[in-house]
Amino acid sequence: MADSSTPTVRPLESSRNRSWWGWGATDQALPDAECIALGSLVPGAVQTPLPVPDVAALALPTVRVEAPRALAALMSSTPRDRASHTYGKAYRDVIRALSGDLAPAPDQVARPRSELEVIDVLDWAAGADVAVVPYGAGSSVVGGVEYRADRHRGVVSLDLSALDQVLEIDRVSRAARIQAGALGPGLEAQLRPHGLTLRHFPQSFEFSTLGGWLATRAGGHYATLYTHIDDLVESLRVVTPVGVNESLRLPGSGAGPSPDRLFLGSEGTLGVITEAWMRLQDRPSHKASATVLFDDVHAAFEAIRAVAQSGLHPTNCRLLDPGEAALAGVAQDSRSALILGVESAHTPVGMRLTELIGLARDHGGTLASTAPESADAAADTWRSAFLRMPYLRDALARMSLITETFETACTWDRVPQLYESVRSRLSDVVRDVTGSAGTINCRFTHVYPDGPAPYFTVIAPGRRGEEVAMWDRIKSAAMQILHDLGATVTHHHAVGRDHRPGYDRQRPEPFALALRAAKTALDPAGILNPGVLLD
Amino acid sequence: MADSSTPTVRPLESSRNRSWWGWGATDQALPDAECIALGSLVPGAVQTPLPVPDVAALALPTVRVEAPRALAALMSSTPRDRASHTYGKAYRDVIRALSGDLAPAPDQVARPRSELEVIDVLDWAAGADVAVVPYGAGSSVVGGVEYRADRHRGVVSLDLSALDQVLEIDRVSRAARIQAGALGPGLEAQLRPHGLTLRHFPQSFEFSTLGGWLATRAGGHYATLYTHIDDLVESLRVVTPVGVNESLRLPGSGAGPSPDRLFLGSEGTLGVITEAWMRLQDRPSHKASATVLFDDVHAAFEAIRAVAQSGLHPTNCRLLDPGEAALAGVAQDSRSALILGVESAHTPVGMRLTELIGLARDHGGTLASTAPESADAAADTWRSAFLRMPYLRDALARMSLITETFETACTWDRVPQLYESVRSRLSDVVRDVTGSAGTINCRFTHVYPDGPAPYFTVIAPGRRGEEVAMWDRIKSAAMQILHDLGATVTHHHAVGRDHRPGYDRQRPEPFALALRAAKTALDPAGILNPGVLLD
Repeated sequence: MADSSTPTVRPLESSRNRSWWGWGATDQALPDAECIALGSLVPGAVQTPLPVPDVAALALPTVRVEAPRALAALMSSTPRDRASHTYGKAYRDVIRALSGDLAPAPDQVARPRSELEVIDVLDWAAGADVAVVPYGAGSSVVGGVEYRADRHRGVVSLDLSALDQVLEIDRVSRAARIQAGALGPGLEAQLRPHGLTLRHFPQSFEFSTLGGWLATRAGGHYATLYTHIDDLVESLRVVTPVGVNESLRLPGSGAGPSPDRLFLGSEGTLGVITEAWMRLQDRPSHKASATVLFDDVHAAFEAIRAVAQSGLHPTNCRLLDPGEAALAGVAQDSRSALILGVESAHTPVGMRLTELIGLARDHGGTLASTAPESADAAADTWRSAFLRMPYLRDALARMSLITETFETACTWDRVPQLYESVRSRLSDVVRDVTGSAGTINCRFTHVYPDGPAPYFTVIAPGRRGEEVAMWDRIKSAAMQILHDLGATVTHHHAVGRDHRPGYDRQRPEPFALALRAAKTALDPAGILNPGVLLD
Repeated sequence: MADSSTPTVRPLESSRNRSWWGWGATDQALPDAECIALGSLVPGAVQTPLPVPDVAALALPTVRVEAPRALAALMSSTPRDRASHTYGKAYRDVIRALSGDLAPAPDQVARPRSELEVIDVLDWAAGADVAVVPYGAGSSVVGGVEYRADRHRGVVSLDLSALDQVLEIDRVSRAARIQAGALGPGLEAQLRPHGLTLRHFPQSFEFSTLGGWLATRAGGHYATLYTHIDDLVESLRVVTPVGVNESLRLPGSGAGPSPDRLFLGSEGTLGVITEAWMRLQDRPSHKASATVLFDDVHAAFEAIRAVAQSGLHPTNCRLLDPGEAALAGVAQDSRSALILGVESAHTPVGMRLTELIGLARDHGGTLASTAPESADAAADTWRSAFLRMPYLRDALARMSLITETFETACTWDRVPQLYESVRSRLSDVVRDVTGSAGTINCRFTHVYPDGPAPYFTVIAPGRRGEEVAMWDRIKSAAMQILHDLGATVTHHHAVGRDHRPGYDRQRPEPFALALRAAKTALDPAGILNPGVLLD
């Protein structure tokens, strides 16, 4: 999902402040009392939060492999490092961490300080039959950084966070060469003095890296046009076990199948992205936004389709269904909200916003508010909730509430059916699993001329000790529903391990053969992120 | 290169009217007298045109393979069919055809009438060690449809032209399922009653197919944003020797590396594209264009960069350098011309054009003309010349004039150096090869925020009988110059066989390994378009 303006950049003082079991910074997690208050809003929820265990007291599996002396300086096998690199941040990850289950912990956490050291780690691992799980900042919500196989002698989590520099800036072409381990705030801070911005703001912005975005085809700031990080790539540098792959730095090319597009979305299975030349934007000086309300969600679908097909390319274009709009405090009384934003570094945007509002009105919308500088109250309310959401999700998890978000994309002709099917079919599953109807809300995070990217949130009371099993059933049903409707298993959360059943169903078989062959060619020892995308 | 409005659609009465040796329709080729007049404009040119031989009188190699009886109805080995499927339409192809050299002629031309028949041909060919060269309408200018290997028992040209239907239209999502053999005019004619258009107008529009565009990542109508056909693809259906690959129809996805992106640009080496769901546009009702002139070509570079980075996304944005502008009749006195066009199906475009002209003026441009409905005289002059150009190229070839066009893309920081290097270094080569400085002109056909796609045209007098050797030396030097400057070997003409040396140099080695492995997985018998992209 994408935010509509630059989030506040607040560098973490140290990784000590990072939560080992849940989202982001330890001091931002909701205290017990707030967890309880939140839980009390959901009928049927348990009364007490899952306690946060002391990581030092947890039982970790025995370390099976040690790196050779030459690599020792990069390696750590402290309980905290191993615990914090065991999982990503999916609901099931948080629950298992809170339960003290760290069975899949890596044997070692490697923190290379140069590309050469990345190569050294891969060379050693390939020879020693050690699996390597590339790790940016661990925000995966799809099991992307958790080793689940059992056929390697050991597992190393390859943490790229020390490679965090902007190495080169080309002001004329508006591009920069950036190391893959740079976190969102860090890379923006290095670009700001040049008046430039990558302007890629996924919800995980503070706790995810450029390399992670590239490897998972992350969705960012732009609701139209440049929706995925893919669109912002000029060239990639990728360390594979058989050599370094560096593409030419080009604005466009038609020379064979795109080399970059093979690595974008490869989720650490084909190589380790170490740096990229990224397209940048001038910092916007003109911004305007508006919120338009609709009595009927289907009228809102028609309105946002008209906007998406208008060629006006709003920067922000987010539809909140009645449940989502109420939760965000943007609208009440079962109304849906369409939030529109336009921006430019060069020319005033008022006229474009007026045209967009006109389209929305033509489809039955009522203008609720406009703001010249994105100071729109509704948008602001939404935005501050946006970065808080993962912390709230953790609080819900601590109250054993089942919380699942899944996102997809489909063509416009299927939208009404998708919306209704997910709500009715998944609602049945949620009732069956939890005994409660729960809440199923929907927003569109990105839109294309031929269809939207709907994002669903499910919340329902869970039974303590059964959270993961209950979540797995709901996740599995959600994947089946998307499959039945021909919608993608993921628009921007990636495949990882959790989405494998849905991905395997949607991936054409000849392409699977080709991908497997490419994997064998690039990673002959089969050490790179085993189980992701392929077996 | 892309045109700025819908070309006239004039269906060919029959394929009988198609030239077997040169571009397009026989009755559109320039008569001898016009060839001679054209030649007389170039000092040092020969005085008489190469004669066009009678195809029935030419010696074709013996047919080595016959298809089994079940496929006989699809097959043709008439001299005319074999001759017309021997080459594409590169300069060296036209010269060799005119010289009566048809040595690489295929043994058979197959014209499947269904996807099932495509499968049947591939099945037979794989078992019989027969190479299959997928053939749309044969407009390749890079040796993409010419068999040059010698390790197969025979060669079949797989002509997809019978698969030319628009099968399904989704008006809501603005998309259509179209067979790969549809020519530009034919598919547009089928979409027009629905108020829709693919709006992909390469210069080859009349004589190239959807499948060819997809397989070669063709460049089309849009100068910004949706420059390549890649951007208009929802899903592909591809027959590979190991099965049919069909991707989900999606507006966007983040599920692993994009399956479609492996086949886009695969140039018939991984499979035969049989149909695609394509994104369509509403037919534009608002259009406006303007021509802005510059005294200094480097000022024009700065102006077009400002336009490309403005976020205003003009539909047309073409820069003609002084030589190109003079040839097109758009400007004289060593001035460069920037042609800007905007269009919309929904909202007036006048304001956007005004903003674009403002940017161009800020960089020293002088407004020469504007027109509300693309009726701009300069644009019109350019446009009518545009579709005629390949016929002119054939006339130049008949006068043994060496004519080479090559196109590339690079980041803005390298543009001045690229422009000067190509002109100075290639000029030296042209003088060395031909004894004359010749003419080297440049235009930008597409622009991106981080760089343009420059397109160079070289014309110089050649020596009769040595045309191909002379052309090859110039082509080879052009590829080397692009490589030295880090520019792509092709922005939208594809790799084929002629660009292999430049492509091999620019393709990262690990990606080459992956591509080779994918090829082996999908085409284990190695029958598909051997020699293209890979050995």
